[in-house]
Amino acid sequence: MPAESGRLYGLGVGPGDPELLTLKALRLLRAAPVVAYPAPEHGDSFARSIVAAWIEGHQREIAIRFPMRPGPPPVEIYDGAAAKLAVELEDGRDVALLCQGDPLFYGSFVNVFTRLAGRYQVEIVPGVSSLTACAAAAAIPLVSRDDTLAVVPATLDEDKIAARLTATDTAAIVKLGRHLPKVRRVLSRLGLLDAAVYVERATLPTQHIALLCAMESDEAPYFSMLLVSRSRRADGRS
Amino acid sequence: MPAESGRLYGLGVGPGDPELLTLKALRLLRAAPVVAYPAPEHGDSFARSIVAAWIEGHQREIAIRFPMRPGPPPVEIYDGAAAKLAVELEDGRDVALLCQGDPLFYGSFVNVFTRLAGRYQVEIVPGVSSLTACAAAAAIPLVSRDDTLAVVPATLDEDKIAARLTATDTAAIVKLGRHLPKVRRVLSRLGLLDAAVYVERATLPTQHIALLCAMESDEAPYFSMLLVSRSRRADGRS
Repeated sequence: MPAESGRLYGLGVGPGDPELLTLKALRLLRAAPVVAYPAPEHGDSFARSIVAAWIEGHQREIAIRFPMRPGPPPVEIYDGAAAKLAVELEDGRDVALLCQGDPLFYGSFVNVFTRLAGRYQVEIVPGVSSLTACAAAAAIPLVSRDDTLAVVPATLDEDKIAARLTATDTAAIVKLGRHLPKVRRVLSRLGLLDAAVYVERATLPTQHIALLCAMESDEAPYFSMLLVSRSRRADGRS
Repeated sequence: MPAESGRLYGLGVGPGDPELLTLKALRLLRAAPVVAYPAPEHGDSFARSIVAAWIEGHQREIAIRFPMRPGPPPVEIYDGAAAKLAVELEDGRDVALLCQGDPLFYGSFVNVFTRLAGRYQVEIVPGVSSLTACAAAAAIPLVSRDDTLAVVPATLDEDKIAARLTATDTAAIVKLGRHLPKVRRVLSRLGLLDAAVYVERATLPTQHIALLCAMESDEAPYFSMLLVSRSRRADGRS
C-alpha cells in the first residue's frame, strides 16, 4: 500500500432527496478528483442524480454500468470496475464511489470494496438507508423497545418469506418490483394484509405511500418497500 | 390545527460523528427557534452533543430528562414532554426534536410524536442509524443480494434471541449493555461465537471494534452492538 496511493471512499448518498446527504459525504465528494457510480446499461445513474448539484466539471467521472436483467450481475462487472478504480488509486487520486442509500445495506459495490480493500485504503461512509427513509415517509415507527425487525428481500420464495415474517415483530420487505403479487399472497396467508404499508420512491418528489390492502395494482418499481407491523395495523389499530 | 401553530420536526442526528448529520437536519435545526432533546436525569444530552456546534445562543432549549433505571420510562415523561412542546407549538414556534441515530429506529420519542401528531404538523427526518454506522465502522457488509437481516434487542430472553438468530443470514444484536454475557451464551450454543463482531460507540473518537471471541471482558456500554453473519465468519472465512 504505497503512501502515494489514492483512497477509496464508499459514500452513502441517501435514499433520493439530495438534502439527505451527510456533511461528511458532501465534503469527501467535493474533494475527490474522481467520482464513480453505478448506472444502467443505457441512461443516467440514480446515485449520481442525487448529488448532481455538487459534482463539478473538473472531476473525472466513471460510470460503472450494470446489465438490466434479473439475477446477479456477471462477475466481470466487479472485476472491471475494480480494475478501473485501481488505475486511479494507483496514480494517487482519491475516488468517491457513490452508493444510493447506505453502501453496506444491499449496496452494489460490496464486491468492489472487497477486491480493493487489501491493496488500498478504503473508507465506508454510512448513509441514510431506504429502511429508515421509508419509515419516516410513512410516519411508521420501525422498532421501539424490545421489538425485533426483519429485513426480507421479496426475491425469496414464499415459504422463506413467510418464515421470516413469522419470526419478527416488524418487517421491511425490500426489492419488491415484480415480486409484489407473491408477497401479497404470503401476507394474505399470514393474515397480515392489513398490517402492510407500501412505500415507493421514499423522499423523492414522486414518493407514493398506500395501504397495501387499498392498492388495486400490483405494479411496483424496484425502489419500493413494504413495512409490515404485526402489532400495529396499518390503519392505526394496535 | 390552526395555521399559526408551529411544526414539530423529529430530526435524526446520526450515530455520533457530527459530520454524519444530513443537510436537511442541519437546515431545520438552525431554523428552529426551539430545540428539544433527551437527556439523563443529571448531565449532558448525547443527542445535543452531536450538534452542539450548530446550536445558537438565541434558540430556546428544552431538555427532556429520562430516569436512568432499566425498563420503560414512566408514561409521565412522555406526557410531560408532549405538554411542554405543545406550549411552544401552540405559540407558533417550530420545534426541532433531536433524536440520536434515526428517530424511528429504537428512538425515544415515538411516544411524543404520536401524542402530538393529531394536533400539529409533524415531520420526521431520517438519519444515519447505528445499524449502518456500525457496519461501516467494522467494514462488514450488512446484507447483499437475497440476504435477510434481523435486528434483535439483547434485552430479550435467551430462547427468543436464539430463535431470531436461527431465522436469518445476518443479525445485529442491539442494546447490549449488561446483556452481553447472556448473548455470548446464546452465540456459543449456536456455534456463532466466531461470526460475531463487537462495535462500541461507532463513529465517535472512542469507537472500539473487536472480534467477540477475542474479547476477555463482558463489559459493554448501552451504545454497543454485535454484528453476526452466519455466512461470513468474523475472520474473513466464508
